[in-house]
Amino acid sequence: MFCLPKQYSRVQVNLCGGWGIKMAHLAIIGSGIIGRSWAIVAARAGLHARLVVRRAEARADVAQAILSAADNALPIAPSVPVDQLMQRITFVATPEEAAKDAGFVFEAIREDLAEKAALFRLLESLAPPDAILASSTSSFGASRFAGDLHTRARIIVAHPLAPPHLIPATEIVPAPFTALQTVETVFELMRALGQKPLLVRSEQPGFVMNRMQGALLLEMMRVVEEGVMEPEDVDSIIRDGFGLRWAFLGPFAGIDLNAPGGIADYLKRYGFMFEDLARERGMKTPAVTPSIISTLHEALRAAHPLNDQPKRLAMRDRLMAALRALRRDQGVN
Amino acid sequence: MFCLPKQYSRVQVNLCGGWGIKMAHLAIIGSGIIGRSWAIVAARAGLHARLVVRRAEARADVAQAILSAADNALPIAPSVPVDQLMQRITFVATPEEAAKDAGFVFEAIREDLAEKAALFRLLESLAPPDAILASSTSSFGASRFAGDLHTRARIIVAHPLAPPHLIPATEIVPAPFTALQTVETVFELMRALGQKPLLVRSEQPGFVMNRMQGALLLEMMRVVEEGVMEPEDVDSIIRDGFGLRWAFLGPFAGIDLNAPGGIADYLKRYGFMFEDLARERGMKTPAVTPSIISTLHEALRAAHPLNDQPKRLAMRDRLMAALRALRRDQGVN
Repeated sequence: MFCLPKQYSRVQVNLCGGWGIKMAHLAIIGSGIIGRSWAIVAARAGLHARLVVRRAEARADVAQAILSAADNALPIAPSVPVDQLMQRITFVATPEEAAKDAGFVFEAIREDLAEKAALFRLLESLAPPDAILASSTSSFGASRFAGDLHTRARIIVAHPLAPPHLIPATEIVPAPFTALQTVETVFELMRALGQKPLLVRSEQPGFVMNRMQGALLLEMMRVVEEGVMEPEDVDSIIRDGFGLRWAFLGPFAGIDLNAPGGIADYLKRYGFMFEDLARERGMKTPAVTPSIISTLHEALRAAHPLNDQPKRLAMRDRLMAALRALRRDQGVN
Repeated sequence: MFCLPKQYSRVQVNLCGGWGIKMAHLAIIGSGIIGRSWAIVAARAGLHARLVVRRAEARADVAQAILSAADNALPIAPSVPVDQLMQRITFVATPEEAAKDAGFVFEAIREDLAEKAALFRLLESLAPPDAILASSTSSFGASRFAGDLHTRARIIVAHPLAPPHLIPATEIVPAPFTALQTVETVFELMRALGQKPLLVRSEQPGFVMNRMQGALLLEMMRVVEEGVMEPEDVDSIIRDGFGLRWAFLGPFAGIDLNAPGGIADYLKRYGFMFEDLARERGMKTPAVTPSIISTLHEALRAAHPLNDQPKRLAMRDRLMAALRALRRDQGVN
C-alpha cells in the first residue's frame, strides 16, 4: 500500500502557504493539445504558466486555441473568467525562458524518445535544482529517457487523458530512481490543480490507462470483425449503456451495486461469464480468482459499508437521470 | 448489413396510429429490478403495463419501489408526473391475467433456463397469437428456451442494461427462427419507448454487452492482481477519466476525434499499443488489422465527415464541461 509521508517538500510548503518565489510559475514545454491544456489547468488554479511557443508567428493561433478551449470549459470553474485566466499564461520562445525559476516543469512535446531524452538533459541544467520535471508521455517510462541524468530523482511521468483541463484522471508513474518526495509533491500539486493523481507502481508499456482502453477497444474490434454488430451499435453499448454509469461510478463500484451482497456476491454469481471470456480469449485462467474477489471485496467494503447500498443506488439513479436530462437538453441522442 | 423492411406488422400499425385493442397493454412477467423498470419505461411512454406480482401482500412493496425509482428518474421525462405514471401500471397475480389481450410480453423472471422454458411454453398459449414475447435474459439465447415452441417465430431476446428506465441501450438478439417481422416490431416498440435497440446478429454467450464489460473488468482485475494500482484508482481511471468521454461518445467515436485524420489515422499511429496488448494476452493477432481499420473508417466517415472534427471536438468539450459541473453540483468527487 502506498502512503504519502508526512514531511513535505519545499514546493509543497509553498503550495500550502501561497505561491512564493520558489513557485513563481509552472513551465510548460510544448504547445500542442496537452501543453495548452496544462496551461489552462494551471491558470485556472491561480498559478502562472510559461508556455513555450518557438515561432513567434504561431503565438496568436496558440492563444486563440487556449481561449476557445477555456471558454468551452468555463462551467468547470465559472469563478475564473477567461480573460483573467489568459493573463496568467505567458508565451516564451525557448525552454530556457520557461524553465528559469520555475517551480515545476511539464514536458508535453511529441512522442519521440530521442527528443524527450535530449529535452530532459537540457531541462536538468535550466530548471532550478529543486524543481520537479514531469513528462506527459503516454508510452515511455522515465527510465527510458532520464535514467542517466544526475538529478533523475526529480523526474517522473504525469500522464493525463487528453485534455487534462476537462479530464482529471492523471497517471503518476515514478521510475525506480524517482524520489518519494517527488511523487509526493506531484500528488499535492495535482490535487491543488484539481486533477486526480493515480499512482502506477511499475513502469510498463501503456501504463494503466491505455491497457484499460485497449482491452475494451480490442473486444469492440473483435465484435465488429466477427460481424456480430455494427460499429455504431457497439459504440452505443458504451455511450447509451455502460457510459451512463461510468460517468459517476467506476466499473468495480458499478458491479458492487448490482448484487445484494456487493462485488463479491456479484462475482460469485456472474464471474463465470468473465471466466469463460478469458478462457476463450486464450488469457491466463483462472482470471476471477478467490484472491482477486477478496481483494476487491475488502477495497469496496473499506470505502462503503454494505448497508449503504440502497442510498448509493438511489444516488446512482438520480445522477444517471440528471445526465440523461443534460444529454437531452444538449441534443445528444 | 441489416435493414428493416418497409412493411409493418399489425403492432407497428397500432404503434403509429395510437394504441388500439391489439396493444391495450404490455404484459410484464416478473417484478424484480428489471420487471419494475420495464413497467416505468412503458408507463412513461403512455402505455399501460400489467405487472405480475404473485403474492398480494408483496404489492405494496413493489408499488413503493416503482414509485421511488420513478421519482428518481423524473428528470428524464418531467412531463409525466409520477402519479400519472403509476396509474398506468396494474398489478395482477398471474401470467394469465397479464398476457390476456397483451400486445407485447416482457419476460423478466430470474435467470433459470428451465423456468424460462416453462414460462414461454405457458405464454405461448396465454398471449394473443400476434403478441411478441421478449425475454430480458442476459445470458440465454432464445434457442435455448423456445426452440421447440410452435410460435417460436415471435420469440426474441431484448436484453437491457439494468435498469432500463435509466439506460436506453438494449440488445436485441433474434434466434435463427425469430421472424424478421418480430425483430422489426421490437425495434419500433423500443424506439417508441425511448430505448436504444441494438441488433446482435448471432446468439452467443454474454451477447455483446457482457463481452464489453467483461473485457474491461478482466483487465482491471489483472492490474489489481499484479499490484500495479489500487482498486479504487483503477475505478477512477474510468470514472474520472474515460467515463467522462464515454457518457457522450462511444470509444470508437472517441478515438476518431483524437487524431487529425480520424480513427484510421489514430489506429495507424497508436494501434501498435493495442496490438502489443493482444499479443501479451495470448489473444488472436494481428488484432488491429487493415480490414478492421478500413471497416471502422468507413463507418465513422459515413456518420461524420472528417471536416466536422473541429465542431465535434468543441461539442465534446462543452459536454464534458457540463458533466463536470453536474458532478460538482451533485457532490461527486
